[in-house]
Amino acid sequence: MKIAVLGPRGTFSEEAARKFLPKGELLPCRDIPEVFERVKSGAAKYGVVPVENSLEGSVGITLEQLLEKHLKICGEIVLDIRHALMALPETRLEEVKEIISHPHALAQCKNFLKKLRVKTRNFYSTAEAAREIAEKKLSSTAALAPRSAARLYGLKILKENIQDENQNQTRFVVLAEQDCKNTGRDKTSLVFGLKDKPGALYEALGIFALRGINLTRIESRPSRRALGDYIFYLDFLGHRSEKKIKQALAELERKAAFIKILGSYPRGI
Amino acid sequence: MKIAVLGPRGTFSEEAARKFLPKGELLPCRDIPEVFERVKSGAAKYGVVPVENSLEGSVGITLEQLLEKHLKICGEIVLDIRHALMALPETRLEEVKEIISHPHALAQCKNFLKKLRVKTRNFYSTAEAAREIAEKKLSSTAALAPRSAARLYGLKILKENIQDENQNQTRFVVLAEQDCKNTGRDKTSLVFGLKDKPGALYEALGIFALRGINLTRIESRPSRRALGDYIFYLDFLGHRSEKKIKQALAELERKAAFIKILGSYPRGI
Repeated sequence: MKIAVLGPRGTFSEEAARKFLPKGELLPCRDIPEVFERVKSGAAKYGVVPVENSLEGSVGITLEQLLEKHLKICGEIVLDIRHALMALPETRLEEVKEIISHPHALAQCKNFLKKLRVKTRNFYSTAEAAREIAEKKLSSTAALAPRSAARLYGLKILKENIQDENQNQTRFVVLAEQDCKNTGRDKTSLVFGLKDKPGALYEALGIFALRGINLTRIESRPSRRALGDYIFYLDFLGHRSEKKIKQALAELERKAAFIKILGSYPRGI
Repeated sequence: MKIAVLGPRGTFSEEAARKFLPKGELLPCRDIPEVFERVKSGAAKYGVVPVENSLEGSVGITLEQLLEKHLKICGEIVLDIRHALMALPETRLEEVKEIISHPHALAQCKNFLKKLRVKTRNFYSTAEAAREIAEKKLSSTAALAPRSAARLYGLKILKENIQDENQNQTRFVVLAEQDCKNTGRDKTSLVFGLKDKPGALYEALGIFALRGINLTRIESRPSRRALGDYIFYLDFLGHRSEKKIKQALAELERKAAFIKILGSYPRGI
């Protein structure tokens, strides 16, 4: 059973994929759109992508891809994020002139980086940054990455748990061709756009509130068309096969400019 | 009259500040928090900071600072964003190995950068990236920056209008100790947190919708405490001195976990 994840080996996405399907065969991808493509083409049965972090907020590219690509969410995984600073075994902390990592990891260690006063550079993933140091033998560069990446690439850990705040969790979603059957403890995700009229969002939320459907997440994103034009990502408790949820979705369909149901799946939190 | 802006010279923030107060004396700052500090300390009467872009969404650090620092919004400016790729006069496009700029500018030119297949590196501002090339005479590096930065730093424009989509606008807010008096054509900005109960956001939006107060923007942001715990930034039409808005704010104060009014100011759009 193949699972496409953000590669290379040793990322938090890999940890998340292992949590979802411990015996799955990992298919490392270059970026998040490639994870979507691998599932779409059938090369992988599942894909695991980060969707939001408790400190950084949403992963924009995942939200965009969920809107554009025709895949479903069939699961969610929540992971505690712990960053480590790692470098070649001979490198000392004082010698580090540049720190490389995924932009979210860099942002999550802002306070630590501010004190060090070194340059930073973005990489597609935390583990790719670790690999870069190992492969190119960069002696004055360090990477922010998961502990597991140090083992994988033969790096030394200079410092651990350097994230700004301890409550650092990332939520991943599992992608597949189909979403999940009703398990009795489910969540549904969708995205919708509103017709441009006053109170439209209030009305849309009322469709759920007045039926006692609990929202667990709302995220507004610019539509990429104009300032003030938004689309909304909603997660709520319940499965799309339940009667009151079916009714709510039908009503939203009538009132919204567009609606796309991303899937129903067992709750991870 | 001093205006603190994100420096160095030649940024979009500078263009926005000129639009607000053409004869103001610019005080270039190293980063967005420094703009807030300069206004707070009285070193500048105004500060101009970007708050949202039609393609990229919100500027997280500005939203955080608005929440933390005790300053008011006293104006807004909307600017059309046009990026140019610039380098030393002798550098040809084929020779460019690295492109440097502010992360938002890099993200806004994603398609162009994808075709070029070169490395990118983040800078505090678009103009700082341009200055870096001029000062260090980097012959295989190019910067994404406003046209005006090329003139300022003696760079050559390799390509213009390379942003992915043409509808690219940034909204800036003007910071001051006080917000503005009622002009009859105003906007109010606030941020609030909700008590954790189902339908709380629906109720909060109802406070405005049922009084016919038009929201122009809603932005949910993670509270930085836990997944699923959000704070909300709202902009709506009207001045906080108007009777129906006073009533709405008083009601929100009763229902919300916290509320902070960021200010009322003349509408820029």
